[in-house]
Amino acid sequence: MNKVKIGIVGGTGYTGVELLRLLVQHPHAEITAITSRGEAGQKVSAMFPSLRGHVDLPFTDPAKANLKECDVVFFATPNGIAMQQTQELLDAGVRVIDLAADFRIKDIATWEKWYGMSHASPKLVAEAVYGLPEINRARIKTARLVANPGCYPTAVQLGFLPLLKAGLVDTSHLIADAKSGVSGAGRKMETSIMFAEAGDNFKAYGVPGHRHLPEISQGLASMSASPINLTFVPHLTPMIRGIHATLYATLKTSADLQALFEQTYADEPFVDVLAAGAHPETRSVRGSNHCRIAVHRPQDGDTVVVLSVIDNLVKGAAGQAVQNMNLMLGYPETTGLESVPLMP
Amino acid sequence: MNKVKIGIVGGTGYTGVELLRLLVQHPHAEITAITSRGEAGQKVSAMFPSLRGHVDLPFTDPAKANLKECDVVFFATPNGIAMQQTQELLDAGVRVIDLAADFRIKDIATWEKWYGMSHASPKLVAEAVYGLPEINRARIKTARLVANPGCYPTAVQLGFLPLLKAGLVDTSHLIADAKSGVSGAGRKMETSIMFAEAGDNFKAYGVPGHRHLPEISQGLASMSASPINLTFVPHLTPMIRGIHATLYATLKTSADLQALFEQTYADEPFVDVLAAGAHPETRSVRGSNHCRIAVHRPQDGDTVVVLSVIDNLVKGAAGQAVQNMNLMLGYPETTGLESVPLMP
Amino acid sequence: MNKVKIGIVGGTGYTGVELLRLLVQHPHAEITAITSRGEAGQKVSAMFPSLRGHVDLPFTDPAKANLKECDVVFFATPNGIAMQQTQELLDAGVRVIDLAADFRIKDIATWEKWYGMSHASPKLVAEAVYGLPEINRARIKTARLVANPGCYPTAVQLGFLPLLKAGLVDTSHLIADAKSGVSGAGRKMETSIMFAEAGDNFKAYGVPGHRHLPEISQGLASMSASPINLTFVPHLTPMIRGIHATLYATLKTSADLQALFEQTYADEPFVDVLAAGAHPETRSVRGSNHCRIAVHRPQDGDTVVVLSVIDNLVKGAAGQAVQNMNLMLGYPETTGLESVPLMP
Amino acid sequence: MNKVKIGIVGGTGYTGVELLRLLVQHPHAEITAITSRGEAGQKVSAMFPSLRGHVDLPFTDPAKANLKECDVVFFATPNGIAMQQTQELLDAGVRVIDLAADFRIKDIATWEKWYGMSHASPKLVAEAVYGLPEINRARIKTARLVANPGCYPTAVQLGFLPLLKAGLVDTSHLIADAKSGVSGAGRKMETSIMFAEAGDNFKAYGVPGHRHLPEISQGLASMSASPINLTFVPHLTPMIRGIHATLYATLKTSADLQALFEQTYADEPFVDVLAAGAHPETRSVRGSNHCRIAVHRPQDGDTVVVLSVIDNLVKGAAGQAVQNMNLMLGYPETTGLESVPLMP
Repeated sequence: MNKVKIGIVGGTGYTGVELLRLLVQHPHAEITAITSRGEAGQKVSAMFPSLRGHVDLPFTDPAKANLKECDVVFFATPNGIAMQQTQELLDAGVRVIDLAADFRIKDIATWEKWYGMSHASPKLVAEAVYGLPEINRARIKTARLVANPGCYPTAVQLGFLPLLKAGLVDTSHLIADAKSGVSGAGRKMETSIMFAEAGDNFKAYGVPGHRHLPEISQGLASMSASPINLTFVPHLTPMIRGIHATLYATLKTSADLQALFEQTYADEPFVDVLAAGAHPETRSVRGSNHCRIAVHRPQDGDTVVVLSVIDNLVKGAAGQAVQNMNLMLGYPETTGLESVPLMP
Repeated sequence: MNKVKIGIVGGTGYTGVELLRLLVQHPHAEITAITSRGEAGQKVSAMFPSLRGHVDLPFTDPAKANLKECDVVFFATPNGIAMQQTQELLDAGVRVIDLAADFRIKDIATWEKWYGMSHASPKLVAEAVYGLPEINRARIKTARLVANPGCYPTAVQLGFLPLLKAGLVDTSHLIADAKSGVSGAGRKMETSIMFAEAGDNFKAYGVPGHRHLPEISQGLASMSASPINLTFVPHLTPMIRGIHATLYATLKTSADLQALFEQTYADEPFVDVLAAGAHPETRSVRGSNHCRIAVHRPQDGDTVVVLSVIDNLVKGAAGQAVQNMNLMLGYPETTGLESVPLMP
Repeated sequence: MNKVKIGIVGGTGYTGVELLRLLVQHPHAEITAITSRGEAGQKVSAMFPSLRGHVDLPFTDPAKANLKECDVVFFATPNGIAMQQTQELLDAGVRVIDLAADFRIKDIATWEKWYGMSHASPKLVAEAVYGLPEINRARIKTARLVANPGCYPTAVQLGFLPLLKAGLVDTSHLIADAKSGVSGAGRKMETSIMFAEAGDNFKAYGVPGHRHLPEISQGLASMSASPINLTFVPHLTPMIRGIHATLYATLKTSADLQALFEQTYADEPFVDVLAAGAHPETRSVRGSNHCRIAVHRPQDGDTVVVLSVIDNLVKGAAGQAVQNMNLMLGYPETTGLESVPLMP
Repeated sequence: MNKVKIGIVGGTGYTGVELLRLLVQHPHAEITAITSRGEAGQKVSAMFPSLRGHVDLPFTDPAKANLKECDVVFFATPNGIAMQQTQELLDAGVRVIDLAADFRIKDIATWEKWYGMSHASPKLVAEAVYGLPEINRARIKTARLVANPGCYPTAVQLGFLPLLKAGLVDTSHLIADAKSGVSGAGRKMETSIMFAEAGDNFKAYGVPGHRHLPEISQGLASMSASPINLTFVPHLTPMIRGIHATLYATLKTSADLQALFEQTYADEPFVDVLAAGAHPETRSVRGSNHCRIAVHRPQDGDTVVVLSVIDNLVKGAAGQAVQNMNLMLGYPETTGLESVPLMP
């Protein structure tokens, strides 16, 4: 079988190198170009020695990358890049998966308010399919353009999904208290994510407003018959990978929550509902595309607590992107995504 | 001025060694005995080299420690020890501060249920003053026996206090999502707190029920005119010291929350209300007795979010115990507690 | 092709769970038994949720494990167990790979001195092949019993090997300054490897003498025409996985060290010599079976400095054991060991 | 007694904020100016909330800081700043302590080679006293200008000092294998010191040549009758504070090394020689100005191993600067430096 030609735009960040890690282990993928304006000419494995022996390509200047000859192009770029280049690629028959936020939010005004720029291709926003397979599997299979979800939105939506679809909770006071490892901030230089600042330290950030709030709200609204009001508080925790979302809602009616969660995700290859009473650890999904979930009702009260963990770079970014690629190309959904989490 | 003679029962855990760190810097304190059954005879500074040059005492066998000759005795022991030895010390005129949970919960049946043992001196529970100075300052000053609060309870109660006293929130759905550094679990050997288990990892624990829940609920109830229903979810975070409590409640009425918090704590030496919009970091109180608090109302909605940080070993244990000692003995409340947090 | 039946004795430690991680990804391996006296009956994946969906077996009581029906048995046990059970397995035609130290040291008296017990089967020590493929590949292929090297010994021997074989250095003053992640101490409970003790801290240990000293010395002696005198100083560093060995020797003669190292390891699948001037990072081999090495001659002086990194649980334990199994069974040496290191 | 007026040039880095932490606890110090070009006008405690309640000053523009009215000025600036401003301050009668490298190396050509710039005031280099009190106490007392030592040089020189003064070791092959916490790299933005890069990772750096090499060599040479040849290999270790230097030398003659070290440092307030057989931990000096040292002779061979730990920001920078200030101003040497290390 011919391999699929793959291009990666913006290969120097964490989602880029994670895409490389996963794609070199994918039996049907052939990486033909990895672009970086700043690092053009340098070998990818010189910047990321973990890839020595696995990736022999240099970074290519985006202008010379011939991305139109790829079958699939992943954008692992900052926000605002993919929206400028996607139309041309789609016109050339390339399928596009954007790991940034350019196509995630359907309401253009909302996007422009939170991302602080004008949107360059609103028409594509309408076409783009939000790439959360547990919600949109059928539509992803036929999509030309997939908007890969954010990391927090993945963990939070998968945790709330069974409750909202079943209409069990008061949707006017949903709370998502989320904790992320530092790689979630990207491989950019900011004082607050230096080792001596973020190490041995814990803090909330973005409480007045975080860009993932409208994305999560849009997703939750699509699952719910009643309007959504969400309080979302992200925190920075001194670990490298991992998101732990702790979700709170008030139950409107009694139900067997454990059964509900198990049934909802019974056929999902990457959502793992733990036994009643369990507490998922982020390390249990380190390097893997799984989301592990537990549901609790403390003191048998009317507050439900959902614990949802993912690896922010895998199910929260590159792994989910490969899962979407598998769906778009008709491969088994788990292809190239079956490695065992690294523990300890 | 004569120094105060101080005994510490159980000096080999983290609260014990932290008491030593603070008391050797206290101008009026003279440590006369540190007991440990297992380490009797060994020099304290051999176990804790950080104390070399500061503490020259050996650990003493509890049976030989002459604790009745002390002015103050701190119990830095596991739960269930202080309740057996306190009466005798009080009878000898010694003041007692228990850093464990023996005297924190007024309802004996509740205590016995959560701690899994019979209480040895219920009468002293009635006498003991709960040592949260921001609530009980006057009563602590005249107390013979102080029940030093737990670490989570300190961070959570100080965060909710202004809202509850003002009667601003719906008390039937309070949420405390709390994150603790690993030293909060004590200097005991458990698989889950080994470096290779707790490092680079994040998890909730005790969601079905944690011993600090009844303590916090009792405290919140005392501040509130209406009944309290609290959901408390503790998490283990890969840092050594620090607690970050993220608190959620639904506002029943509008108010200037920033002013409320600032006024409530205007005269408190150890509660620091940050400017509007701020996010306190745990490291900003590392090694210090301060609690730093910020209050938010995201999206101007009806959910209030309070962020409250302490050092679990200082304001959450040994520092608050010294603060209580200062109050009991008539010293200025901040004596010996003025060192600057260690950052980075 | 029939799969190889594999038994693991002692599956609850880090080398055991790491063997499981690697073997479930090995195309020819079928794990038929994992023993644990203490955890018999419990599902392996209940203790290690990272293995959910990959390992469905429970731990088996060693007495009931039918290990004689396996093709290969790995001992991932404390020292002193394999020496009691190996003869019986060999007699039944089973191949044995011991990840502990029972068969590593040829001189029985030396072993007994350092390990503090009598050796139960000295005859098997004579038969056992020391499982460092870069030295003993041919003998491993025909071995019934392989003594898998220790983690420090692997990193140190691979670093010194080119220099000693070429006879370039003064062997009377070799220095190995080695740093290990905390998982190297095993999944056992010791105060010094708790998070709040080993975190944000660095120390040497075992300077007067460490059990890996005689193992390394024996290995270096076998590569060298002249007698070996080694100073070995291990250190505990606050990370989970990884060993970094910094090796020092005095050059007796000038040579192109870079070329020497590259030529020595040109055909080795798991030893990667970096470009001149490079500094290998432990994370560049996280989860992988590679050893990455750089050689330096600072200031063009007569001191050579070799930097050698491995993942202590993979090339330093379970990965090397699988490499040895591949050699013993005639599989390509890299089978099941080709996953990409996890970075960041 | 009047307080000493103190100015700090460059208060936004780690040595600057550490100077502030120590000086606000110094009974005779009054901080009158903290300069920062970039942050002028901002409150110091807004950038460093750990200083809330302790430092009420804003950062001042250097041009407006009136540093000439200070009694002492500390430079906590990048290299190359102090050499331009010191003469003017000295002329105004101010004493100057430079925490950067401008005045550390006596040979101007060597300095210019390693620091890559022309020296602006060679004459002051000749006048400056190298501020290692254990070597230069008498000269520091009368100095106008002190060159505060680097962090690695402090740990390495104090470790080698007893051996070199006694002439016990072969000085042609000294080895210093040093490990530093990440704060040693400063509060600057570099990819390699971000949390997700430096965390859970260990590496050597600068093996071909590090700027501290000539500084250490100069210092060791001043202690030794014979010429010095040093191999210095620094490593980055995933902790915030702390340096651990492991030093190796070949003994030329036998001696009671434990007694030698104890006698050498018997009267030093900040050098603590541990008992024979001990291993100092970096956390045992966290936040303190102590250097703790142990000396070993493994296997009774002719290689001596010295273990030397400091807090890089205290004895390796700000604390030693305050110690020097105390000497220059005639205060007891330990004034303001007596706080207990923070452990855990």
